[in-house]
Amino acid sequence: MEDSEEYLREAIALAYANAEKGGRPFGAVIVRDGRIIAKAVNEISATGDPTSHAELNAIRLASKSLGADLSGCAVFASGHPCPMCMAAMRLTGINAVTYAYSNEDGAPHGLSTAAIYDDLAKPFSQQSMEIRHLPVRLTGRPDLYAGWRQRQG
Amino acid sequence: MEDSEEYLREAIALAYANAEKGGRPFGAVIVRDGRIIAKAVNEISATGDPTSHAELNAIRLASKSLGADLSGCAVFASGHPCPMCMAAMRLTGINAVTYAYSNEDGAPHGLSTAAIYDDLAKPFSQQSMEIRHLPVRLTGRPDLYAGWRQRQG
Repeated sequence: MEDSEEYLREAIALAYANAEKGGRPFGAVIVRDGRIIAKAVNEISATGDPTSHAELNAIRLASKSLGADLSGCAVFASGHPCPMCMAAMRLTGINAVTYAYSNEDGAPHGLSTAAIYDDLAKPFSQQSMEIRHLPVRLTGRPDLYAGWRQRQG
Repeated sequence: MEDSEEYLREAIALAYANAEKGGRPFGAVIVRDGRIIAKAVNEISATGDPTSHAELNAIRLASKSLGADLSGCAVFASGHPCPMCMAAMRLTGINAVTYAYSNEDGAPHGLSTAAIYDDLAKPFSQQSMEIRHLPVRLTGRPDLYAGWRQRQG
């Protein structure tokens, strides 16, 4: 628990520093075996890339040293991770995430993703974004997925 | 509908071409006002970046010309988008997504993210990843979020 609080303080300090430079107030660190593997901040303001969240950037950075499988890693985020970052953690096998500022803390300042969580939790047909499945195929080609798997050996 | 099928065929052709080069069989295009804004493929194999999905790469590319707000854009993806990419679309204001290959098509080949969707739909306390809120604060600092908002003017 003490270590967790220390990692969170590090993530929060990154968030403060980023905000002081004109960025959004989010920072994250990734830890494995008691060692910080990656530190990152939200870089949307600096880069214009809307996917440039602190957690996603930290995952990208960690993967440079550890590869795509981040099993055994824990994320410490200054703020409640958004659904994109939460799903990215799951995709990479990250085992745990701890955050300091909640969506409730963020809401008065436009920094909550609770509404997106609520929307994504609905059945596809009821979500705000239109989601369609059109089973189009290219004619005269072997199956896309089966062909890929064969190529994997 | 005809246009949609044409965009999907483009996304699928990208997926085939990527698989032929040793990549994963996923492609995506982003369309606005009847014009393709961005085309991308899954680059995990080429880059080692686990977030390098076709849809996320297409969003990053589209944002280079359109900025972080992708309202009015539609995504056409060869395969059912994963939860990370679906959330990224929502974050950027993308209005619609259409896909050709379903998670059911992908499952026999290890290319379904249905299990991750199921897990993420559970309450946080029941998900496979440990999610903790520790309301740590740095002492002697103005509030992180309120300070950020003040700085926005």
